Amino acid sequence: MELTAMKEQLTQLERELHAYGHAMGCLSFDAATVAPSGSSEARGLTLSFLSEKHYAALVNPQVRELLDGLWSRRDELDAATLRRTQLLREDLDELTRIPVEEYAAYARITNESSERWRAAKATGDYAVFEPLLAQVLDYSRRFAGYRDATRPAYDVMLDSYEKGMDSATLDALFSMLRSHLTPLLASHSPSEPPAFLSACCPVESQRALSAYLMQVLGLDGSRCALAETEHPFTQGFSKYDVRITTHYYENAFLSSMYSVIHEGGHALYEQGIADEYQYTALADGASMGMHESQSRFYENLVGRSAGFLRFLAPTLRKLFPEALDGVSDDALLRAANRVEPSLVRTEADEVTYPLHIMVRYDLEKQLVAGTLSTKDLPEAWNALYKEYLGVDVPNHTVGVLQDMHWSEGMFGYFPTYALGSAYASQFMHAMRRDLDVDALLARGELAPITQWLGSHVHRYGKLYPPAVLLERATGEAFQPRYYVEHLQAVLKGC
Amino acid sequence: MELTAMKEQLTQLERELHAYGHAMGCLSFDAATVAPSGSSEARGLTLSFLSEKHYAALVNPQVRELLDGLWSRRDELDAATLRRTQLLREDLDELTRIPVEEYAAYARITNESSERWRAAKATGDYAVFEPLLAQVLDYSRRFAGYRDATRPAYDVMLDSYEKGMDSATLDALFSMLRSHLTPLLASHSPSEPPAFLSACCPVESQRALSAYLMQVLGLDGSRCALAETEHPFTQGFSKYDVRITTHYYENAFLSSMYSVIHEGGHALYEQGIADEYQYTALADGASMGMHESQSRFYENLVGRSAGFLRFLAPTLRKLFPEALDGVSDDALLRAANRVEPSLVRTEADEVTYPLHIMVRYDLEKQLVAGTLSTKDLPEAWNALYKEYLGVDVPNHTVGVLQDMHWSEGMFGYFPTYALGSAYASQFMHAMRRDLDVDALLARGELAPITQWLGSHVHRYGKLYPPAVLLERATGEAFQPRYYVEHLQAVLKGC
Repeated sequence: MELTAMKEQLTQLERELHAYGHAMGCLSFDAATVAPSGSSEARGLTLSFLSEKHYAALVNPQVRELLDGLWSRRDELDAATLRRTQLLREDLDELTRIPVEEYAAYARITNESSERWRAAKATGDYAVFEPLLAQVLDYSRRFAGYRDATRPAYDVMLDSYEKGMDSATLDALFSMLRSHLTPLLASHSPSEPPAFLSACCPVESQRALSAYLMQVLGLDGSRCALAETEHPFTQGFSKYDVRITTHYYENAFLSSMYSVIHEGGHALYEQGIADEYQYTALADGASMGMHESQSRFYENLVGRSAGFLRFLAPTLRKLFPEALDGVSDDALLRAANRVEPSLVRTEADEVTYPLHIMVRYDLEKQLVAGTLSTKDLPEAWNALYKEYLGVDVPNHTVGVLQDMHWSEGMFGYFPTYALGSAYASQFMHAMRRDLDVDALLARGELAPITQWLGSHVHRYGKLYPPAVLLERATGEAFQPRYYVEHLQAVLKGC
Repeated sequence: MELTAMKEQLTQLERELHAYGHAMGCLSFDAATVAPSGSSEARGLTLSFLSEKHYAALVNPQVRELLDGLWSRRDELDAATLRRTQLLREDLDELTRIPVEEYAAYARITNESSERWRAAKATGDYAVFEPLLAQVLDYSRRFAGYRDATRPAYDVMLDSYEKGMDSATLDALFSMLRSHLTPLLASHSPSEPPAFLSACCPVESQRALSAYLMQVLGLDGSRCALAETEHPFTQGFSKYDVRITTHYYENAFLSSMYSVIHEGGHALYEQGIADEYQYTALADGASMGMHESQSRFYENLVGRSAGFLRFLAPTLRKLFPEALDGVSDDALLRAANRVEPSLVRTEADEVTYPLHIMVRYDLEKQLVAGTLSTKDLPEAWNALYKEYLGVDVPNHTVGVLQDMHWSEGMFGYFPTYALGSAYASQFMHAMRRDLDVDALLARGELAPITQWLGSHVHRYGKLYPPAVLLERATGEAFQPRYYVEHLQAVLKGC
C-alpha cells in the first residue's frame, strides 16, 4: 500500500477511537454530574457496548497489519506519525497479550471489588473488602507478567502509568523526601487554623470566584465548562471541549478555590496541546505524572505563592466580606500554606502530601512483591502513618480504605501524584531562567507563565515520553531536589 | 436458521441501535445543557461518526435477510416480536429507498438551512433564508416520492410523523375547529392580564416548585432529572433515564410551571412503557401526536383544571408570598386560562393554539402541492394570521420565521401538536367513564389518572399504530369533537 494511504488509514483509525472515547466520556461525565441516580444500569449497557466497539476497532488483524506496515517503514515517517504508530502499537500489544477471557474476568472482578470497597469504607469493615483486593492484586500481578515477564511486576505497573518510570527512581525520590522532611516535620508545631478558614462563604459568591479564577487562569471559556461534583476532576474530550468540576463547601472556601485552580491546570494542559494532534494518539498529556505536574504547578506554585495570593486578596475580600473582614494578606498567605500532618491524603497540605504517597508506595511495592499480604495490610498501613506522619489511625474508613485506587487495580498509580509535584518544581526552576515569575504572579499576570508551559510542555501532547519531555523543557534529567527545596521553603515560611 | 436464534439476533440488533441512540442522545443533551459554546464542531465529528455506525448497523444485507426471514414466518411470531420486525423493516425500507448520496446532500442542506434560518430570524430578513427553504422543500418532496410514489406527497409526510394520518382527517379536524372557534373568538374580548402574572417570583422558589410538581406528578425522581435550557424539552434515553428541562423567568412563574407539567407528561409516558419493551423498537411513544397527547393532557387537562389549580394554590402562595399576596383561587384560575389571540405559537394559550397550527397546516399543504411558492410564503402567512387570529404581523421574526421546523425539513410535523391536544381530550372523555377525575384533581391525587393512562396508553409503547391505540384506549375512532367542546368550555369560562 502507498504510504499516503496508510497514513490516511491511521488517521481514520484514530478518529474512530476518539469518537468512541468521546461518546463514553460524555456518558461518564453526564453520570458524574447530572444523571438521575437510578440510571446507572441502563448506562452500563451502552458503555459496555461502546467499549467493545472501541476494543474491536483497535484489536483486529487489519489494524495490526497497518501498524506493522507503518512501523516497518518508520524511517520514512515524520516524528508525529512515528510516535502515533508507536503508541498505538503499544496499546495493541498490551491488549493482545492479555487473554480476552482474563480481561473480561478482570473487568467483572474490579467492578465487584469497587462495590465492596465502597461498602467497606462506609462501615470501616476491611474484612469485607480484603478477599476481593487479594483477587485484584493477583490479576494485576499476572497482567504485569503478560506485559513484560522480564522485569519486576511493580516496575511494569509503574511503567503503565508513567512510561519509563521504575522503583529505583522512585526510591531515590522518596528517600530524599524522607531524609529532608521527616526531621523538619518532627520539630514542626502546627499553628491553630484561623477562624476565617471555616467562616461562612455563600456558595453563590464562591461560584463567582470560580468564574473569576477561570478568567485569571486564561482558560478559554468557550471551550471549557465548569460543573459541580462530589469529587473534583477534569475531563477533556478534546482541546475544544474540556470540563472541570468542583465542590462547594460553605465553610471552606479555600477547598473549591484550590480545586478550580488545580483542575484549571489540567484543563490548560488539554487546551494547550497542538491543534494538529487533535483526535490522534498524541492528543493527551504525556503521562499521568506530567498531567498532575500541570495541575499542581497552578495549585501550589502559582495558587499558594505569596505574590498571587496578595494579588487575589482584594477580590476575595470583596466576594466574602463577612468571612474575610480584617484578615490581612499575610494571614491569608499563612492559612493557605498551613502544614499539619493528617490522616486523609485528599485533605493533606502540600508538604505532608508526599508522605501519604510514600506510605502507599511502600505498601503497594510489598503487596506486589508478595512480602506483604492483603490480610496484614491495615496493620502495616497504620504503622507507616505513625512512622511517617506521626498520626494514629482511628478507623479503616480514614485509614487503609480511604482511597478507591487499589480496589480498581490501580497499583503503581499513587507515585504519579508525587512525581507531578516534583516535575512542577523542576519546571518552575527552569522557568525562572526565562521569566521574572514572582513579578508576574504579583500582578496576577499568568499568560507568560502559561505560554512558557505551553511551548515547553503542553503543545507536545504525547509526542515525547515524560522523561524526554522533562529534559527537553528543563535542560536536565529528573531532579527531585527542586521539589524538596520547595517543600522545605514552605515549611519554613509557615 | 432457528426462530429462536433469529429472535436473539433481532434483540442484539435493537440493543445495538439503542446503544448508538443513547450515546448520540447523551451528546445532544449535554450540548443543550452544559457543553461550552465552542465545542459544537468537535461534537459534530463524533455525532456524525456514531450516526454512520447507527445507519450501517441497520442498513446492511444481513439485517435485511434477518428481517425478511422473520417477516416470512410472521404467523409464528408473538405480537411484540411481529411489531418490532415490522417497525424495523419500515425504517430499513425508508432508508434504503433514498439514495445514499441524496441522503447525505440533504443532511448538508438542512444543516445550512438551519443556520440560515437562525441568521434570518435574528434580523427578520426572510430573503436570506428563502433559497435554502426552497431547496429543503424540494428534497422533502422528492423523498416523499421515494417513500411512496402512489400517494400525495403531503400525506406521505404526515404519515412519517403520525402513522396512518392523512390530510382528509386533518381537514375535518381543522374545519371543525374553524367553524366552532373562529366565531366565538371574534366576539371574545380578552381581559387585561392581572399584575400578579408578571410579579417577581425568585428563581430559587420556582426551582422548589419544579421539585414539588415532579413529586405531585409521580415522576420517579431516581430515573428522571430536571435541567435548565432556553427551550424546554424531554429526552428519554430509556424508561430508566429520562431528562426534562425548563426555563425560569423571574416575571412569569406560570411559564416554567406549565413547562414542567408539560414535559412531565412526556416523561410519564417514557417511564410508563413496559419493562419488557426496553431497548427494543417498541420503547418509544406510539407517534409524535400520541407523545404530545400526554404532555398536553397533564399541562392543560390536569394543570389548568379548576380542581388541580385550587389544590395547588396554597403551595403557590407559600412559595411566592409576595407575588400572590391576596390573589384568590378564582383569579389564579382565570389567569391560567386566559385567552387572547397572539403572534407566537409557543406563547399561545390553549384555545388559540390550534389556530396557529391551522395556519401552518394550510401553508405547508400548499407549499408541498406546489400551489404556493416559498417566495410568496410570508405574504400568505401574514394573511392567514389576520384571518384566523385577527392579528397583524409586524415583522418576520415573530411571523413566518418564528419556528425552526421547516428549516429542518419537518413538513407535516406541526399537525401532530393539534392532534396531541385532540387525543388528550378524547382520553379524558374515556377516563371519565372509569374515574371521578374532578374529585381526584381537587385532591391533587394524580396516581389513578396516571395509572389509567399507563394501562391504556403508556405501557404499549409503539406496539400499536396511534389510531389503533386510540381506539383501544377510548372505545372509539378519532373524534375531534371532545377537543372542540373542551376549548369551547375554556373560552366560555374565561
